[in-house]
Amino acid sequence: MRLDKFISLMKGKGFDGALISPGTNLYYLTGLHIHEAGERLTLLVISSDGNYRLLAPSLYENVVRNFPVTFWRDGENPYEKLAWILAEFELSSGKLLVEDTMRADWLINIFRVGNRGFEFYSLSSVIRELRMRKDHREIDYMKHAAKVVDRVFEELLGWDLLGMRESELALKIELEIRELSDGISFEPIVASGENAANPHHAPGNRRLRKGDMVILDYGAKWRGYCSDITRTIALGKPNEKLLEIYEVVKDAQERAYKSVRAGRKAREIDAAARETIAGAGYGDYFTHRTGHGLGLDVHEEPFIGPDGEVVLENGMTFTIEPGIYVPGLGGVRIEDDVAVIDGRGKRLTRAERELVIL
Amino acid sequence: MRLDKFISLMKGKGFDGALISPGTNLYYLTGLHIHEAGERLTLLVISSDGNYRLLAPSLYENVVRNFPVTFWRDGENPYEKLAWILAEFELSSGKLLVEDTMRADWLINIFRVGNRGFEFYSLSSVIRELRMRKDHREIDYMKHAAKVVDRVFEELLGWDLLGMRESELALKIELEIRELSDGISFEPIVASGENAANPHHAPGNRRLRKGDMVILDYGAKWRGYCSDITRTIALGKPNEKLLEIYEVVKDAQERAYKSVRAGRKAREIDAAARETIAGAGYGDYFTHRTGHGLGLDVHEEPFIGPDGEVVLENGMTFTIEPGIYVPGLGGVRIEDDVAVIDGRGKRLTRAERELVIL
Repeated sequence: MRLDKFISLMKGKGFDGALISPGTNLYYLTGLHIHEAGERLTLLVISSDGNYRLLAPSLYENVVRNFPVTFWRDGENPYEKLAWILAEFELSSGKLLVEDTMRADWLINIFRVGNRGFEFYSLSSVIRELRMRKDHREIDYMKHAAKVVDRVFEELLGWDLLGMRESELALKIELEIRELSDGISFEPIVASGENAANPHHAPGNRRLRKGDMVILDYGAKWRGYCSDITRTIALGKPNEKLLEIYEVVKDAQERAYKSVRAGRKAREIDAAARETIAGAGYGDYFTHRTGHGLGLDVHEEPFIGPDGEVVLENGMTFTIEPGIYVPGLGGVRIEDDVAVIDGRGKRLTRAERELVIL
Repeated sequence: MRLDKFISLMKGKGFDGALISPGTNLYYLTGLHIHEAGERLTLLVISSDGNYRLLAPSLYENVVRNFPVTFWRDGENPYEKLAWILAEFELSSGKLLVEDTMRADWLINIFRVGNRGFEFYSLSSVIRELRMRKDHREIDYMKHAAKVVDRVFEELLGWDLLGMRESELALKIELEIRELSDGISFEPIVASGENAANPHHAPGNRRLRKGDMVILDYGAKWRGYCSDITRTIALGKPNEKLLEIYEVVKDAQERAYKSVRAGRKAREIDAAARETIAGAGYGDYFTHRTGHGLGLDVHEEPFIGPDGEVVLENGMTFTIEPGIYVPGLGGVRIEDDVAVIDGRGKRLTRAERELVIL
């Protein structure tokens, strides 16, 4: 059971307890579908002695079953109930792990409950040891999520893209993903023409036109697990500079992919992409990491960047997505999901990587 | 300028600085469209001396203009750059306001940068003084967002709902909202039959059938501002118990609405709804607050609950949404958006409140 594994892991690392707010870690450990309840305190409290209990607002009374739980009602002070649980677990001081994405105002209040007796540490640094090593079932879910985005890419190549607004195309992609999977893993990005120079462009009113290169970045979820793909396509023949950039990015992506080995550090994979792009003279235009881990979260460990010290192992899954962004001109990014299997990288996404000119 | 107003407010309350991560407060103060960049540190740093500067990852280089900013690149330690900014602003100790929704891992790291010299406080307790008093332009945006959801309700009554899955109806509502506005303010809730007994039910595969009462809860955004409406409809004649419950909820909602006055406390509005429901014998089945403030966030101050001490003023906007949820039977909720104008409550949402039986 994952909760037992986690408790022995945190105990071994010298932590006394953990406070886990709703999110993928809570789901990973308990299998409970607890959505965020906004500002209402919802916490899984764990002690390294093996005690655990969920503290949740009473609106979850009909949802949480077969799990130790304390409910609080609107009007009650949930931090008092938290103090009781901590007392019951004999947690009054020591090192507590805290869910990274927990709201800061909860932590500020917990800090006061704890009467400054606690030291807080990031949960992800511990739980990532479990989460970044996927088992076969997890990788099967990810393969399915990857197949969905491959299929969406094939389909969208048949759509009448010329004249379509970025936001319309993003919506069509989203609906297609929803049709084929449990939903999107993030809001699709459609960045056309000079908009593609911004790696986090939000799809807008610009209409796709002849000569555009268009970055399409989207993902699906299957049984909680994410895929994340990027392809850059051309509408008619783009200018020479962008064609050159496309080939550099494709080459960088392939070299990074080929460099994946169990036993190598994440930063070595990043270096393979980064050196290729720098060697072609575009180093200043590659402004982000080469990739990120992928699983229940669309961004998780191992991060594939210049500071990536994680040593790759079988069962790790991550993206490889170098890009070049030239302000005023446009951009290119190519992204695949990769799993380490039998010591080597294996692409989960397999959509066409040669430049598609429509 | 809102930033100046905020600085003088926080100074007056004895705070030395503020750290504001991306979200509606950052947008409210600066007008900058800074989306969350996942785990990458992005902060607006403000000192009560009047200094302010944005710290942002370099992928925002093409986005942030005409605003004092320090960028950091992947591979750099952003907390070092934060320490420099704090030093430049001569902030080495004192009381810092922190964005409530900031990630806890950022706060843990900031805590270490600050060498424990800082005390942290919730930003919302201060900035709410500005945000919960809407000006005419803000209320106009909210009126528009409310009109959108009214219109969607009229339209959906014409759809062929029998046999439709909850999730299909939720999607159709979402697409209709997107068509008419800047997007949804939250994922629509469709809870039918006994699913309606869970106030936070996620739309699922259940098909709507004759005899169902169906809770529809959805919202739109317009220029950043939210609407949020709930109506409960019946497919064919529902059972007597649910009809009785509907009338109790409608009565509670109307009484709470009529009780709105500038000068009254939020909890008095909650009491009007709660006493009506308790008087009818359903007190134990009304498990949440009567309402919540509404604006750039779909949940903000003033909260309309038993502990609501905010004194209502002109320009405040909030929902009134009592409900009754009976496990195994179903539920009813009716929600309107209300603004305090000329000392009285004024409904922004105006869709039919009498039970619609299709």
